[in-house]
Amino acid sequence: MEKINEVVSRIKPIPQSAYDNVKRRLDNLTKPVRSLGRLEELAQRYVAIRGVDNPKLEKKVIFTFAGDHGVADDGVSAYPKEVTPQMVLNFLRGGAGVNVLARHVGADVIVIDIGVDYDFKPSNGLVIKKIAKGTKNMVKGPAMSRDEAVKGIEVGIGLAEEWSEKGVDIVGTGDMGIGNTTPSSAITAVMTGETVEDVTGRGTGINDEAFRKKVDIIKKAIRINKPDAKDPIDVLSKVGGYEIAGIAGLILGAASRRIPVVVDGFISGAGALIALGIQPAVRDYIFASHLSVEKGHKAMIKKLGNNALLDLNLRLGEGTGAALGIGLVEAGFKILTQMATFESAGVSKGNE
Amino acid sequence: MEKINEVVSRIKPIPQSAYDNVKRRLDNLTKPVRSLGRLEELAQRYVAIRGVDNPKLEKKVIFTFAGDHGVADDGVSAYPKEVTPQMVLNFLRGGAGVNVLARHVGADVIVIDIGVDYDFKPSNGLVIKKIAKGTKNMVKGPAMSRDEAVKGIEVGIGLAEEWSEKGVDIVGTGDMGIGNTTPSSAITAVMTGETVEDVTGRGTGINDEAFRKKVDIIKKAIRINKPDAKDPIDVLSKVGGYEIAGIAGLILGAASRRIPVVVDGFISGAGALIALGIQPAVRDYIFASHLSVEKGHKAMIKKLGNNALLDLNLRLGEGTGAALGIGLVEAGFKILTQMATFESAGVSKGNE
Repeated sequence: MEKINEVVSRIKPIPQSAYDNVKRRLDNLTKPVRSLGRLEELAQRYVAIRGVDNPKLEKKVIFTFAGDHGVADDGVSAYPKEVTPQMVLNFLRGGAGVNVLARHVGADVIVIDIGVDYDFKPSNGLVIKKIAKGTKNMVKGPAMSRDEAVKGIEVGIGLAEEWSEKGVDIVGTGDMGIGNTTPSSAITAVMTGETVEDVTGRGTGINDEAFRKKVDIIKKAIRINKPDAKDPIDVLSKVGGYEIAGIAGLILGAASRRIPVVVDGFISGAGALIALGIQPAVRDYIFASHLSVEKGHKAMIKKLGNNALLDLNLRLGEGTGAALGIGLVEAGFKILTQMATFESAGVSKGNE
Repeated sequence: MEKINEVVSRIKPIPQSAYDNVKRRLDNLTKPVRSLGRLEELAQRYVAIRGVDNPKLEKKVIFTFAGDHGVADDGVSAYPKEVTPQMVLNFLRGGAGVNVLARHVGADVIVIDIGVDYDFKPSNGLVIKKIAKGTKNMVKGPAMSRDEAVKGIEVGIGLAEEWSEKGVDIVGTGDMGIGNTTPSSAITAVMTGETVEDVTGRGTGINDEAFRKKVDIIKKAIRINKPDAKDPIDVLSKVGGYEIAGIAGLILGAASRRIPVVVDGFISGAGALIALGIQPAVRDYIFASHLSVEKGHKAMIKKLGNNALLDLNLRLGEGTGAALGIGLVEAGFKILTQMATFESAGVSKGNE
């Protein structure tokens, strides 16, 4: 917990002046003022976050945290639990959605076994930081101990710090874990104050009966465990998951190193809600990549106070939306750094 | 006009079976069914449009048509008319927004002088197909003769045919022309039946007074010229522009060659409305890249029957939104062609 406190104390809100400095540069480029809308906002935020004069945007990494969930035994997912390790192996071979979209935007994918119920052999691109072989079933008690939740967050922080030293410019979050929309909905309900019904969706695609059961399970887990919304680590440990802990830690660690974080969809959003609860200033370092189909995501995005960039009916997770979001942030950054100015191009200014 | 009729007769609606074939392939990939939402729709449409078994998506070209407008003399823009040729030169040097975003997605930019009031020297990346040095002022009579409008469309068709032979896989539309939101609003009002007030915006950023004047000018141009909504070429010639004609032709030509067209914002949308009026089946070949800030764009997108992919508050034109849209279509195509199947990856299927 000392590590978390130390990192959290280093995260500061971005001052308005940092955004204004970039705006002045943007307004000299050969285009009507603000005519590139959110791309300009992305450029502004990216440079303001980095906090140096001429930052680069080259090294892009998506961290896909994988963990299993005790609650999956209760049939909350359309997929069997063995799919978690199977998909990890698919990530490592480069055949999953996140691999394709990461390659498309020139990002690397790092997969973290933070709590999968399977023993992986060492492999390129796989970081083994297993805390346990999945969480316990949150319907029967806390998913993790407080100590395990803290360790999970510290894994994410450690990765952010390690990759900050390696010169990473921007990170994306991702997840894999059969059953993990269930803890994510539980976290959203507790942290936003919305009802469980309002923040629970169909995950990978369960039927009506399984959906009703899922809502009941989440309600029961909250009733039994009594997570304290004022104590995000309590919420995380009781109704969360290891991959969610890792994502929360990655966000905190990246913010403390002034590295922008592009947050994926619903599971990553649950991690972001935990990070935001621990340190509200992380909001300034987060880009919400897309609005997920998953029902609770709207409430999450609202709480994060950060309009989603894309609305493409995605609901895969893994970091797929984060990859597309990174591509957009880079597009905005290139507008700032590669466009001609009115003066350099000899273009007349308007009278706006 | 013979050329146009011949091309139009070759454009056929895409049969549902073509989409279904791609869907079957998508549903075997290692992800819950439809979990990549609109990316899967893009892959489906791209492959269905191409109409061959294993199309590639490599050669991407954005065609930015430039023309001047007689109506600009009446102060409908925040920028002086000389900015049209200045920006063309900026495009050719690679310093404009469209150049930056085209490079970002790996697309080339071809600039077409179809009606600029300036004599360009020959240059790499510039196609000179000038029909006139700008349109006439549509407040005083037709912007072009019917013959000039037909010629403008034929320029676009010719480019699509030439680049089809060169193996282009996907094209984007773009525009440059000071004052060109004015004819675009006029076309939108006539072709959608909305009021001028409802489809007129602030273009590059005019003030309240100039805005009121712009609405009056558009109303007057429609009153004087009486464009016939049932005859799109009549509308184009009376209240359109050369770049809009070129865009309409590019769309028709590309559709006739089964090349997908990613349509940029408001000006390109005016061209798309003309193409759609001439041949409703072009709808199947169009991707609407983004929803522009420009007020009339919503009515346009609705008429095109094609949900916009992005909503990033863009209003620059040039093909900037088309570039981002091409990047998304390619992302969807790579999902289809690069992801592992359940079988190849040894991943268990769900019970959706």
